[in-house]
Amino acid sequence: MKLVSFIHAGQPTYGVVQGDRYVQPPADFLSRFPDLLAVLKAGAQSELQLAAAKSGTSVDPAAVKALPVLSNPGKLICVGLNYKSHVAETKRADSEYPSLFLRFNDTLAAHGDAVLRPSFSERFDWEGELALVIGKGGRHIPKAQAFEHIAGYACFNDVSVRDWQRHTHQFTPGKNFPGTAPFGPWLVTRDDVPDVAKLTLETRVNGQVMQHASIDDLIFDIPVLIEYISRFTPLSPGDVIATGTPGGVGDRREPPVYMKDGDVVEVEITGLGVLRNRIATEA
Amino acid sequence: MKLVSFIHAGQPTYGVVQGDRYVQPPADFLSRFPDLLAVLKAGAQSELQLAAAKSGTSVDPAAVKALPVLSNPGKLICVGLNYKSHVAETKRADSEYPSLFLRFNDTLAAHGDAVLRPSFSERFDWEGELALVIGKGGRHIPKAQAFEHIAGYACFNDVSVRDWQRHTHQFTPGKNFPGTAPFGPWLVTRDDVPDVAKLTLETRVNGQVMQHASIDDLIFDIPVLIEYISRFTPLSPGDVIATGTPGGVGDRREPPVYMKDGDVVEVEITGLGVLRNRIATEA
Repeated sequence: MKLVSFIHAGQPTYGVVQGDRYVQPPADFLSRFPDLLAVLKAGAQSELQLAAAKSGTSVDPAAVKALPVLSNPGKLICVGLNYKSHVAETKRADSEYPSLFLRFNDTLAAHGDAVLRPSFSERFDWEGELALVIGKGGRHIPKAQAFEHIAGYACFNDVSVRDWQRHTHQFTPGKNFPGTAPFGPWLVTRDDVPDVAKLTLETRVNGQVMQHASIDDLIFDIPVLIEYISRFTPLSPGDVIATGTPGGVGDRREPPVYMKDGDVVEVEITGLGVLRNRIATEA
Repeated sequence: MKLVSFIHAGQPTYGVVQGDRYVQPPADFLSRFPDLLAVLKAGAQSELQLAAAKSGTSVDPAAVKALPVLSNPGKLICVGLNYKSHVAETKRADSEYPSLFLRFNDTLAAHGDAVLRPSFSERFDWEGELALVIGKGGRHIPKAQAFEHIAGYACFNDVSVRDWQRHTHQFTPGKNFPGTAPFGPWLVTRDDVPDVAKLTLETRVNGQVMQHASIDDLIFDIPVLIEYISRFTPLSPGDVIATGTPGGVGDRREPPVYMKDGDVVEVEITGLGVLRNRIATEA
């Protein structure tokens, strides 16, 4: 099942992707669960599927404004340096632990949104990633049970302002410009992804392949990430973990390549769709 | 004016500190503004003062359970390495920019709460800090106008799990164990703090002074922090910035000193009160 958030008739809403239509649940369902986060918190995904099947109200995706898969996760956790190809290009040492930083929710953007480069940085870079969304919360989740805690997967672009990321050791500023984290186009529920490690991630800029990797290349795989993260912080339904980017970022190319006005960046993961955004400059 | 959040008769509520009592606004005010964050978002602090003065309903602080000044800030931003005495003890190089990391809201704790050391780390350390709360939001706030954007100040203890903080360059894990950031006992509004740089910060463990510094010793002072932070992220009423800790943390002492079960840690800042917490071990 694919779950999608969007604005229709001026109202934020959500639904299920069926073929080339977005099918909405009926009004009483929407009033019980105002957004996808509420659906996830209630574990009401199957109920949503049934409700949408009954309602039969569908909209043309071209007639709506996309929203991020979730706009208001409780926690938005990003993993850095989690593919050997990326660690190598950054010339950093291997690490025994995952490198984690946090993003504010106002950094999230939707499929199709213009992603805004701040006018005072030329070093605006892509980072195609697989994001997972927690379905069942917990603390101290053992690796062996990690997948049971996942609601689903989506494409994520951890767009980075490289100079601001490197002002100090802490990545925070360069990862927290508003609207720099496209997240979509939809969430594919876990039952539709039998083996996430077999998926392929590709990032393209103006059609040119910049990153291409297998999710199997993750240094700290998904069970390890969930076990590690849940040792220090409780995870709740709707929390998002962006699992890291492979080699091929613009900043480490020779010469470096950065995104500029009008560039189109796409993150595609097998079966999860294409997350497409255009770059513009913040006023 | 001192603004305080607490639980009374089983309900989260708030009020104004008057002498040795907490004065609550009347029920209609509480229903309009369910928490202090709502008061700050509406800029209704003066209205709160008037409403509390009229209501005359007051409670004995000993009869209530304290809450963090705010439990639900939109952004909880922490500054690292912002006193020369602390930079020196960490043997790190000076930086041209403030070092910033983020905390989740579930790391906040109240005055009087037991602060829980994870059972799997012995390196549980204090970091007494001055926290400021944003009153007027904005982006690209110039230094010269920074103070106009501040609602007030409070004591903050950025309690750190040192081994987990140093798993990688990113401080995230060691700074995000639940309930490790006491914030209180109350917010002192800016009009009652004519010159914040003149305040003195002191951290005591079991009565022994461990940190003692002037807020004037900040490397990146409050206007610089607000200008820098608001260049990358929009600030909103209720956002919290913890401004950094001075020298004297336990981890950099020779030999190191860490907090253990039953220890009492206090952060006191001139005019802002004493934030007192006991250490316990997480089950």
